Amino acid sequence: MAVKVIDVKVGIFDENDRIAEEVRRKNRQNGTFMINIMASPGAGKTTTLLRTIEALKEDYSIGVMEADIEASVDAEKMEEAGVRSIQVHTGGECAMDASMVQQTLDQFDTSDLDILFMENVGNLVCTAEQDTGAQVNVEILSLPEGDDKPLKYPLMFRVCQCVLINKTDTRDYFPFDDQAVKERILSLNPDAEIFFLSAKTGEGFDEWIDWIRRQAAKETEK
Amino acid sequence: MAVKVIDVKVGIFDENDRIAEEVRRKNRQNGTFMINIMASPGAGKTTTLLRTIEALKEDYSIGVMEADIEASVDAEKMEEAGVRSIQVHTGGECAMDASMVQQTLDQFDTSDLDILFMENVGNLVCTAEQDTGAQVNVEILSLPEGDDKPLKYPLMFRVCQCVLINKTDTRDYFPFDDQAVKERILSLNPDAEIFFLSAKTGEGFDEWIDWIRRQAAKETEK
Repeated sequence: MAVKVIDVKVGIFDENDRIAEEVRRKNRQNGTFMINIMASPGAGKTTTLLRTIEALKEDYSIGVMEADIEASVDAEKMEEAGVRSIQVHTGGECAMDASMVQQTLDQFDTSDLDILFMENVGNLVCTAEQDTGAQVNVEILSLPEGDDKPLKYPLMFRVCQCVLINKTDTRDYFPFDDQAVKERILSLNPDAEIFFLSAKTGEGFDEWIDWIRRQAAKETEK
Repeated sequence: MAVKVIDVKVGIFDENDRIAEEVRRKNRQNGTFMINIMASPGAGKTTTLLRTIEALKEDYSIGVMEADIEASVDAEKMEEAGVRSIQVHTGGECAMDASMVQQTLDQFDTSDLDILFMENVGNLVCTAEQDTGAQVNVEILSLPEGDDKPLKYPLMFRVCQCVLINKTDTRDYFPFDDQAVKERILSLNPDAEIFFLSAKTGEGFDEWIDWIRRQAAKETEK
């Protein structure tokens, strides 16, 4: 299956919030729950998404928007796994903004989707600065990156409703203080949901999957 | 020892190249070799730097410029290890530019240093776009991030003279194709030096340290 690629232009910054609200309104009208997944390069976004979709696909119609600077390897992986996906190329930009999402939705009919995941560009700084129009933001932090990341990239942890601590299967290799990372995240964002899991082994996925189901149900009530 | 923190302002973009040349000229006049270290969050920049400095400190006078958005944890680690360091806060900016480096050098006398390392903000996108005025750029890619990163963040691999593949001690946990990553890097940048190493165990450090010594010698000849 050939991967469809969309090249998007950067939106005008001060219009971003208005466009983000439009994107959210349109998705809610369509009954589509859009989840923006953010992380450093290599934190496990694609692997986490594949396992998440596997767990949800019986009950929901799911699509993925893959945002990358120029490559299409993630959308190809999604297609191989049979997931409906679209590759967005940001043309050098370090994050998706609401206008880029809107341009993509104009070309990619998502009205029949229950859940639309967006895998944002691998970046802990720029992605956090843009409202993309997603209904929720999720950050994936992996054990190898270290438990000090909330101290160094605080905005990311402030804008996310949910933080996944991934690669828990690598505990023997990477010292990581669960309690410290929780305290650091909650001091920035007292309402954050925090789940420890491994996209490789599936450990800890049930709670995360339940959380998505609950959020999706709330969105449908609206 | 209290960490000194400098808050810098963003430079005017089109002046960046001119200022970068000024920074390089000044550093060369002083006999200071400046090395810009870039990587994703958590790839091991600080640990690699600490071990690198340990190996070089008998022969060179060394300083470190720690660039972060707002935290000072890395400069504190450097100070604890007895390394002369300065913390630069970029105020939300996702990368250092030449003007930020110049502002920092104006306040932090580096004229007696042989080697000045700059630990850039953790980011594979924005940092690659800015000439900081360093004489060489080094990228650290870690095994947990995956061997596909040159495909997804090509500019980073084009602008670096040297790529360190870090965390080789985690091979059993992370499938990583050494040959594939080398081919991907060299297809973007045929002259890139590539070293596989572990900042945790010290494996592979000799070649990297030799490379720095050779580059430093070349800089002194100029």
